[in-house]
Amino acid sequence: MSQTIFNSLDEHFKTPFGAVCCGEKVTFRLRVPAQIGCTTPYLCICRWDEPVQLIRLEPEGRQGKFDLFSLCYTAALPGAYFYFFDLYINYTKVFRGERGEGFLSSAPQGDRYQLTVYEPGFSTPQLLRGGVMYQIFPDRFCEGTPHTEMPFADRYYRKNKDGEPYFWPNEVDGGLLNRDFFGGDFAGIESKLPYLKDLGVTLIYLNPIFEAHSNHRYNTANYMKPDPLLGTEEDFSRLCASARRMGIRIILDGVFSHTGSDSIYFDREARYGSNGAYHNPHSPYRRWYDFGPQYADGYRSWWGFSSLPEVNENEPSFQEFICGENGVIDHWIKLGASGFRLDVADELPDSFIRLIRKAVKRHGEDKLLIGEVWEDATNKVSYGAHRTYLLGGGLDTVMNYPFRNAIIHFLRYGNAAALAESLLSIVEHYPKPAMDLAMNMLSTHDTVRAITAIAGEDCEGHDRYWQSGRVLDEPHFFFGKRLMRLGFCLIFTLPGLPCIYYGDEIAMQGYKDPFNRAYFDWNCKDETLRGCVRELAAFRAGCDAFREGRLRILQAEGGLLIFERYTDRCRAGVVINRSQAPIQLTIGGRQITVPEYGYQLVEGGIDEKK
Amino acid sequence: MSQTIFNSLDEHFKTPFGAVCCGEKVTFRLRVPAQIGCTTPYLCICRWDEPVQLIRLEPEGRQGKFDLFSLCYTAALPGAYFYFFDLYINYTKVFRGERGEGFLSSAPQGDRYQLTVYEPGFSTPQLLRGGVMYQIFPDRFCEGTPHTEMPFADRYYRKNKDGEPYFWPNEVDGGLLNRDFFGGDFAGIESKLPYLKDLGVTLIYLNPIFEAHSNHRYNTANYMKPDPLLGTEEDFSRLCASARRMGIRIILDGVFSHTGSDSIYFDREARYGSNGAYHNPHSPYRRWYDFGPQYADGYRSWWGFSSLPEVNENEPSFQEFICGENGVIDHWIKLGASGFRLDVADELPDSFIRLIRKAVKRHGEDKLLIGEVWEDATNKVSYGAHRTYLLGGGLDTVMNYPFRNAIIHFLRYGNAAALAESLLSIVEHYPKPAMDLAMNMLSTHDTVRAITAIAGEDCEGHDRYWQSGRVLDEPHFFFGKRLMRLGFCLIFTLPGLPCIYYGDEIAMQGYKDPFNRAYFDWNCKDETLRGCVRELAAFRAGCDAFREGRLRILQAEGGLLIFERYTDRCRAGVVINRSQAPIQLTIGGRQITVPEYGYQLVEGGIDEKK
Repeated sequence: MSQTIFNSLDEHFKTPFGAVCCGEKVTFRLRVPAQIGCTTPYLCICRWDEPVQLIRLEPEGRQGKFDLFSLCYTAALPGAYFYFFDLYINYTKVFRGERGEGFLSSAPQGDRYQLTVYEPGFSTPQLLRGGVMYQIFPDRFCEGTPHTEMPFADRYYRKNKDGEPYFWPNEVDGGLLNRDFFGGDFAGIESKLPYLKDLGVTLIYLNPIFEAHSNHRYNTANYMKPDPLLGTEEDFSRLCASARRMGIRIILDGVFSHTGSDSIYFDREARYGSNGAYHNPHSPYRRWYDFGPQYADGYRSWWGFSSLPEVNENEPSFQEFICGENGVIDHWIKLGASGFRLDVADELPDSFIRLIRKAVKRHGEDKLLIGEVWEDATNKVSYGAHRTYLLGGGLDTVMNYPFRNAIIHFLRYGNAAALAESLLSIVEHYPKPAMDLAMNMLSTHDTVRAITAIAGEDCEGHDRYWQSGRVLDEPHFFFGKRLMRLGFCLIFTLPGLPCIYYGDEIAMQGYKDPFNRAYFDWNCKDETLRGCVRELAAFRAGCDAFREGRLRILQAEGGLLIFERYTDRCRAGVVINRSQAPIQLTIGGRQITVPEYGYQLVEGGIDEKK
Repeated sequence: MSQTIFNSLDEHFKTPFGAVCCGEKVTFRLRVPAQIGCTTPYLCICRWDEPVQLIRLEPEGRQGKFDLFSLCYTAALPGAYFYFFDLYINYTKVFRGERGEGFLSSAPQGDRYQLTVYEPGFSTPQLLRGGVMYQIFPDRFCEGTPHTEMPFADRYYRKNKDGEPYFWPNEVDGGLLNRDFFGGDFAGIESKLPYLKDLGVTLIYLNPIFEAHSNHRYNTANYMKPDPLLGTEEDFSRLCASARRMGIRIILDGVFSHTGSDSIYFDREARYGSNGAYHNPHSPYRRWYDFGPQYADGYRSWWGFSSLPEVNENEPSFQEFICGENGVIDHWIKLGASGFRLDVADELPDSFIRLIRKAVKRHGEDKLLIGEVWEDATNKVSYGAHRTYLLGGGLDTVMNYPFRNAIIHFLRYGNAAALAESLLSIVEHYPKPAMDLAMNMLSTHDTVRAITAIAGEDCEGHDRYWQSGRVLDEPHFFFGKRLMRLGFCLIFTLPGLPCIYYGDEIAMQGYKDPFNRAYFDWNCKDETLRGCVRELAAFRAGCDAFREGRLRILQAEGGLLIFERYTDRCRAGVVINRSQAPIQLTIGGRQITVPEYGYQLVEGGIDEKK
């Protein structure tokens, strides 16, 4: 049987755990069976596309039947480093890395390990640690001021809030594309602050609020003005101030990779006086965009959507407009925002992100910058470059889609070992300052709603699911709600900042856009999930281990996941039973039963296990 | 709008509620809008096929805008009476009966009402009121003595208890038809008495235990001997004595409409020395059976199954064998049985059932006689006669399939109004002594298992469902378990005696015979339903209203059913919420929330409602 000779997740083999700061010492230790004729091992390490360095490990002596070797390594530069070990028996390579662990194997090579090295001084807001986020899609949360008419004639008002958002092929309203507005606004959000406070929320993430001619508002028309349907600048300021008095911060969606074609800046639709870049070669915004015959529409657009002309983020006038004094970021933070979530961070150059960070942090270390990244942000390659999002100087943290995907998969299929592997991979790779604030969500405006993803039919590759909303039958809805509790338990207790996508706490359903963006059902009396969220928020608030404690997975087998969060001073344990049968455990000498599809929170941590 | 002028369920219109004893006065009262020119109403009443009697109601004066009429009626003979009222306006009949209520309508007639009149002195065991039954299919409950060989060579031993019962078309074992035995026995049942006691059980109903050559043992081979696989007479006696010490009675299945062809009495298979009726015209049992060329097999058999020759129940030697001194009934009650469930009571003449009753009751008034009847037993017609099962002198009570079917339908589809109607119809028709002990079950050995019936695919008319056992996927199993709680709540709190079909308390699944007869899963650790059953048994034991209290339905709307049980001295209330959303109610000034698919037990009854 193959023998573990290394395990990057185990501090016996690598200290410290996970990512390190430049200049921080990392000790690697190998434990090789003695007397099998193994050569002295070498560490093979490199930054992404740089040449591999070979460094010899030093013998540390014998431990039982093993020879120990160790090496103290220090990386000078930030980056994602990859490493493995070189060992030979009879001139044959025998080291095989596999999911953290390393073995002696006649099929060598396998995976490389990652060591993330970040910049000295990388820090993220202390204030926000241990909190609870809530994502609001502004048009769909709460209409505070009943609207009698729309501010623009091309908007269709959805008076009946029970209705499903219109899908594009819908013929009823003449194929209006994202022009149906339910009228959610700042006043509505403000009126619901007590509701959010009661849920335990400390941070609201608002999808775009700037003037824009679609209900999602990702096609910005005017960066400096709230959409009139949401309210005025004063309304926004008042909302931020009211929220802050209740201990709640608000961050905004910054959409800086493209504008709307229907905007002050581009103005293809000539709504804004034709001084935009599209019609006027002398427009002050002309240099923001790339025009040319090589583009199908005559200009470069985001993923070919002609309504979303892409911006050249390296253009100084654009950078100044966004990041300069009294620029977009200044403007909104002065009005009360506490930071930004950067839309499609992949499409923004690292240098531009660094400028944005500076603009945000000018207003204080506690202002937040989160990026939209769908994969592991520490080894993401986009447009040919290894991205530096989380190495310091860039983003504070990212939307944690890898956690989300792994959690949904676990809830749907019940493989705890696969979940643990995904979780540990991210926790190992992410710098701790970023991990502590990683946005852990079950759904977003860009995904299938969690309950639908968990209990609905698998919709991968099935277009028809994009054309339906509330589809779960009674058994699946009930089952899905039950599993949602486990999902909330996971995001509230794993490293990072839990984020509730508005309506998930009342089990709102929906396949993808636009069905995941229905109006919040304020008539829902169901407290099942809300009660669960409140309980989890209280548990989270009651233990510092959830602010920045480390993660220790004790068991991950079948549908059972047991883990702890811990610091030097406190511990908390979590048992998740995603199986059909109750599970009996002895914890701290006490016999407990965790029901099927149930969880158990354990104050003070877990001494013994099953 | 049509106006209620009569309601048989409302004591303002008919006193007393429900069935009455011969000679007991019944007052009918009609409330007819005054000044519309209505004639004085007549009661039209008759026993089943007898001529209708017309009796004039007497004016009782005016009440507001209504004229009241009343009549005091006394039935001299037992029977099911049917009645309606005759009223005219302008020579036109205008009375229309509909589900208990009566209206003035230009579409007259409608339903007739039923008045059940039973024999004076009809009483049923006091001892068993308020208890909890448990039905055991003996081969499948518990194997107490591990069997090494079978007592007969044509039995196939199922050592692996997890396996599904063999279905006839199964080729694996050469098409053995009901010859696979799991080896459940008396010792096994005895060993599980503490388990049953803990569940709250006070009465066990055993499916057939007499020697017979099939696993269901409905094809009796020897009425006087337990099947050797189950144990000896001594084992049975010891089981009964042990049970009685724990406050648990045991009743047996009496299969008296047919025997096995493979029996001492018929012995077509010549297993018993060929002295049976089939081979020997001089057999003492020859007169029990009907032979003749008009029968396909040369003898009359039950529903044409040649392995089940039908018995002539009017044959004095058979009657004496079953009901005489030291007959079958005497024999088993002396060994410890507390009564019988009569298989296919429809096929037994009323006169024979009366003999059986006498034989059972010779051993005391507390001995029980339950009949297998699938419909409303007070108006059932079989073989051309109106059956007298529940009129006194016959059965004590019956298996309450009408409740079962209505409850399963309610749990599956959530129509509380339809459930209430079915419940009230039975409660109105059944004599109270019979109703108090009606066997209220969710499943039996003859039905689809309750959880499968509730949460499985609708199997009516689909043969393939007869070929599968555990088929519910995770969401449906979880949902089904949740609804099973409501099902248990209903049978434990409605009038009658709740009966748990073995294994339903651990959510065992199965479509019809043989899949509803799997071996009890003693490895199941799931306490969800068992905990619920214990709670319900305790609630039931804690209030006399469940022994013989009346039923009052307070609300039956959508998925919500609220009812009370009450006597002069005590009350208890039950709220059943079979809907997707929690329901908030104010009861006794206190706000309570009944969760979706949940129930709430209310000690002391319900003052206010939603």
